[in-house]
Amino acid sequence: MILRIGIGYDIHPLVEGRKLYIGGVEIPSNKGSLGHSDGDVLIHAICDALLGALGFGNIGELFPDTDEKYKNARSEIFLKDVKKILDEKNFEIVNIDSTVILEEVKLSPFVGEMKKKISSILEIPFDKISIKPKRNEKFDAIGKGDALACFAVVLIKSKVSE
Amino acid sequence: MILRIGIGYDIHPLVEGRKLYIGGVEIPSNKGSLGHSDGDVLIHAICDALLGALGFGNIGELFPDTDEKYKNARSEIFLKDVKKILDEKNFEIVNIDSTVILEEVKLSPFVGEMKKKISSILEIPFDKISIKPKRNEKFDAIGKGDALACFAVVLIKSKVSE
Amino acid sequence: MILRIGIGYDIHPLVEGRKLYIGGVEIPSNKGSLGHSDGDVLIHAICDALLGALGFGNIGELFPDTDEKYKNARSEIFLKDVKKILDEKNFEIVNIDSTVILEEVKLSPFVGEMKKKISSILEIPFDKISIKPKRNEKFDAIGKGDALACFAVVLIKSKVSE
Repeated sequence: MILRIGIGYDIHPLVEGRKLYIGGVEIPSNKGSLGHSDGDVLIHAICDALLGALGFGNIGELFPDTDEKYKNARSEIFLKDVKKILDEKNFEIVNIDSTVILEEVKLSPFVGEMKKKISSILEIPFDKISIKPKRNEKFDAIGKGDALACFAVVLIKSKVSE
Repeated sequence: MILRIGIGYDIHPLVEGRKLYIGGVEIPSNKGSLGHSDGDVLIHAICDALLGALGFGNIGELFPDTDEKYKNARSEIFLKDVKKILDEKNFEIVNIDSTVILEEVKLSPFVGEMKKKISSILEIPFDKISIKPKRNEKFDAIGKGDALACFAVVLIKSKVSE
Repeated sequence: MILRIGIGYDIHPLVEGRKLYIGGVEIPSNKGSLGHSDGDVLIHAICDALLGALGFGNIGELFPDTDEKYKNARSEIFLKDVKKILDEKNFEIVNIDSTVILEEVKLSPFVGEMKKKISSILEIPFDKISIKPKRNEKFDAIGKGDALACFAVVLIKSKVSE
């Protein structure tokens, strides 16, 4: 069995006049995530962790923010493409853990829905995804409510032997 | 064998008039960690990483900071409860690695004691826990001495097959 | 098979009058990384993740910045020493994933060269190392161009059974 580990980090500005998407779910908030796409830090961090584990570049390389195609795109399309790459490379997901750092909005009521969305796209059981909301105790850009960020780690495996 | 990976992140303010507990050890310091409990970033990050690996919520959910029971509580009680959950779910710890980011206090003399404390609660050998102190080079809230933070990763396994 | 996971974090100031080394490669930039050694955040984070996985201290302990020997040293020497420790302990690298956070310099053209350098020192195939460049969206010290940082995770294994 081949195992691979990956880590993803993403940060986006929080601004008025944008919607807040996290884990593919729209979260009620007076500020939203600014990005070329919908700025979904959780999906971006998971994509990057999976691509890192595969040794297959990164989300910025695969889905460049200079590409008009991805302007305001919902990030689920990135995750779907990453899932295709996993399948092509004969890798499956062992599990995903993540921490979403956001000051002002309470995310715990939405975690179930996020997990449902992501598990459905990645075709893995609900309990193989963990999403842990966290505040930054008023410190730095995240703590001041100007940004949100996410760290994700993944473990993937292949039945093909090394 | 089932493997699971987890990541934990915690940050707490550093203020005068509080004691500084890290890894269950009281560290001599003119500032301490502010939190509803004792604000032990290392134990909190390890708890969160273990809960994330298990897909079993997070430390804020299990031990809410609105609960009077946990006011000024020593964080060892959280780690003991997380150990119970690991046992119930038939998971054991493969290893834990962590980085504690703190500017002004030199932690290396206390790392041995922290490892002893944590290994005793989790009932794992001393050498399955790693704690790496790090400074933040004067940058941002941690670098200015206003906060301390911790990142932890864990690998756990179960003998039950998938 | 014994598996071990590790995480590394490093941050260095970016200042004029210094060269910028990342992953053992000199990157054209008007600012460079300030450190006792060459301040290579990627190599330092990988060393720390490997040492953490081994439970063998940390880079600051093994190569103290009070040691004149390491003044302006190229960080490859640290990585070579960590590789020796891996060999002595009978561990081999499963894979390494990393995110380098840097605002102003585009790193993607140099990632291939960095991977070549690191894979050659660690004697592992090119595709077992992943390096993902990331901007910090103008936030905090990294986003303002005053610092650069790196997160790395590693998975290592030993053929010796537990």
